[in-house]
Amino acid sequence: MSDTGTKPVKKYPAIHLQSGRQRRVMHGHPWVYSNEVQMDTTAKAVPPGSPVRLLDPGGTPLGIYTFNPHTLIAARLLSSDPATVVDQAFIADRLRRAVELRDRLFSRPFYRVVHAEADGLPGLIVDRFDDVVTVQANSVFMDRRIDEILAAIDEVMAPRAVILRNDGSQRALEGLAEETRLAKGEIDGSIRLEENGATFFANPLDGQKTGWFYDQRDNRAFIASLAKGGRAIDFYSYNGGFGIQCAVAGATQVIAVDRSALALENATRAAEANGVADRFEARKADAFQEMERLGTAGETFQVVVADPPAFVKSKKDLAVGSRAYRKMARLAAKITAPGGYLLCGSCSHNVDPPTFAELVARGLTDAGRTGRILRSAGAGPDHPVHPHLPESAYLKAIVLQLD
Amino acid sequence: MSDTGTKPVKKYPAIHLQSGRQRRVMHGHPWVYSNEVQMDTTAKAVPPGSPVRLLDPGGTPLGIYTFNPHTLIAARLLSSDPATVVDQAFIADRLRRAVELRDRLFSRPFYRVVHAEADGLPGLIVDRFDDVVTVQANSVFMDRRIDEILAAIDEVMAPRAVILRNDGSQRALEGLAEETRLAKGEIDGSIRLEENGATFFANPLDGQKTGWFYDQRDNRAFIASLAKGGRAIDFYSYNGGFGIQCAVAGATQVIAVDRSALALENATRAAEANGVADRFEARKADAFQEMERLGTAGETFQVVVADPPAFVKSKKDLAVGSRAYRKMARLAAKITAPGGYLLCGSCSHNVDPPTFAELVARGLTDAGRTGRILRSAGAGPDHPVHPHLPESAYLKAIVLQLD
Repeated sequence: MSDTGTKPVKKYPAIHLQSGRQRRVMHGHPWVYSNEVQMDTTAKAVPPGSPVRLLDPGGTPLGIYTFNPHTLIAARLLSSDPATVVDQAFIADRLRRAVELRDRLFSRPFYRVVHAEADGLPGLIVDRFDDVVTVQANSVFMDRRIDEILAAIDEVMAPRAVILRNDGSQRALEGLAEETRLAKGEIDGSIRLEENGATFFANPLDGQKTGWFYDQRDNRAFIASLAKGGRAIDFYSYNGGFGIQCAVAGATQVIAVDRSALALENATRAAEANGVADRFEARKADAFQEMERLGTAGETFQVVVADPPAFVKSKKDLAVGSRAYRKMARLAAKITAPGGYLLCGSCSHNVDPPTFAELVARGLTDAGRTGRILRSAGAGPDHPVHPHLPESAYLKAIVLQLD
Repeated sequence: MSDTGTKPVKKYPAIHLQSGRQRRVMHGHPWVYSNEVQMDTTAKAVPPGSPVRLLDPGGTPLGIYTFNPHTLIAARLLSSDPATVVDQAFIADRLRRAVELRDRLFSRPFYRVVHAEADGLPGLIVDRFDDVVTVQANSVFMDRRIDEILAAIDEVMAPRAVILRNDGSQRALEGLAEETRLAKGEIDGSIRLEENGATFFANPLDGQKTGWFYDQRDNRAFIASLAKGGRAIDFYSYNGGFGIQCAVAGATQVIAVDRSALALENATRAAEANGVADRFEARKADAFQEMERLGTAGETFQVVVADPPAFVKSKKDLAVGSRAYRKMARLAAKITAPGGYLLCGSCSHNVDPPTFAELVARGLTDAGRTGRILRSAGAGPDHPVHPHLPESAYLKAIVLQLD
């Protein structure tokens, strides 16, 4: 993105790449690692979260970056135009483009507005529920500019309420404290939202993440299209996204399984709002235990959804978490009817798509089942991916038909 | 898939896995390589393309496989039930299940019916255009059973015409000759088909592959949703799939670029059939040359589609073909308007998704462009993937918004 204006060039501190370290940046990568910059007196003196001018070893300006001399990723690209001034107008411009894209993608104002780097705002997450907006500032840079961000959000979207969900795990890496608070307006406990034509409820102050996981929107639509005329079960249902959409699409019975009473309350309200309460059951249980119990009882479902929270939160969990995914696929496959459909999801950054696909395939074999993958997909288009950060595509959903 | 019946067990030749070579098969992989089986007198005497009983080194039956002692992939799983009889009824049963799945996925009978291994019929491809069906037999096994296959297709789908498109590159590897012929009924040159609500025309006897590429169905719907109110250009347009759907979705002008006069004739007929002929232009040209020319002329488009035939047909083409993909992304990015959308496609088996994504990202940088990936997808669900053959997912489509 280039941003030109008539304002005088603000002289941000100059940070130099080390000799021989410009290659990746020249190829378009938006990050600079701390061992790639000259950690001179200027660099060390930059307060964490400041904008800097990045220069190549020959002194050619590469653009404006956020800078933190204390983190592994020292600099993140804000704009390749060295004349960029990072202020409320800059943030509002990025927001405006992000909203324009979403309004082209979706007919209703329910979506992720800002997905960090891919929307030119590294470290910032903004979700929209019509006139309620939730914000996550995951870097010192964004945290320090929260007032400008809130003002820019007002300027572009004029929401009636804004919630700060500053409790993401990335904040700890940046040395930031956790904080969840209402930054503007009021909300009455839960809020209403729409997805694929269905109505849902979420608690942006108390629920998981920003209250809703828009990333599975397209995967929910796909699995719902397969649910007509059969029973569906939705493990780790949270507020009922998959299950309710299956019911709306014509499933004869839907069971939502979650350990959170609050989540199941939202799912039950959604069942009522969508007129499918007579075909909906909320079941408070541990997913693995309930899968085992149903498997032993010989129950089967036309649609089984297993979309858990991340089993592999960090690289050290890889072995244990991978076994959990394989076990999940085995248990879920056991209760999928012959000819039925199984969705296995993973939002673990540390498990790449081929690895996840292999774990699911092994789980099927463990269960003595075969079948075919109908869909392998990531997050929807309101969760775009920076072309040079393919590893930031964290979501994986595999939908199979089993024999 | 298991198939049990009351018929007497037919004694197919017994082929034994070598000691220590059963691991992959036990894990669910449907292929056995020639160096994994005991190439004893029985094995060597099996006529290529015969069904065999595969046994593990201890003599436990693993199922019924197709066998060819002369190919690298010696055996392919047909059924894990050792009592399976491979006859017309067996093929019809697989076909029936495949049709049932597609009829659940799609409201109209236009789809790939059989996608080889994933549908339990290794080496067989069947596409359906309502009452016209095209068949590709890509293995000796399928080639030898073509009469049973045709009878099974009659039994399950009763088409008015069937076309054998036995000109795939895989046939040469199996020592089979190329052959394209009408196996049943008659067709009047071109046939009519529907995709995402639009009408198209194809020539299953003379066109590429089976006449149409259903694999891009969902990617076409997605890019069309972004085309409203702007100009779109569709390189390697073939019969107009992407371009016409953009026009139907509200693009102000659409240019389809292809070197084939026959393809452009079909695209033009489709433009007329869909009532968008006034906004459609067929342009006979080489895609790269036309991209260069438009780029030099400074023309830009809201939507640019570049979905070429495979640039990397075999591993030896990898370097040259990879450069071609990168060049394609560069040239196509140059003529994508700021804020516009670019789809880059690849159907090269030998270029994996991360490699293709990197080539596209580099092409963008070469063009001095940045943006965000909105969608990374493969083929639609009528092209399922065997869970243990993830590498058979050949199609890659990346849709970006560029700044």
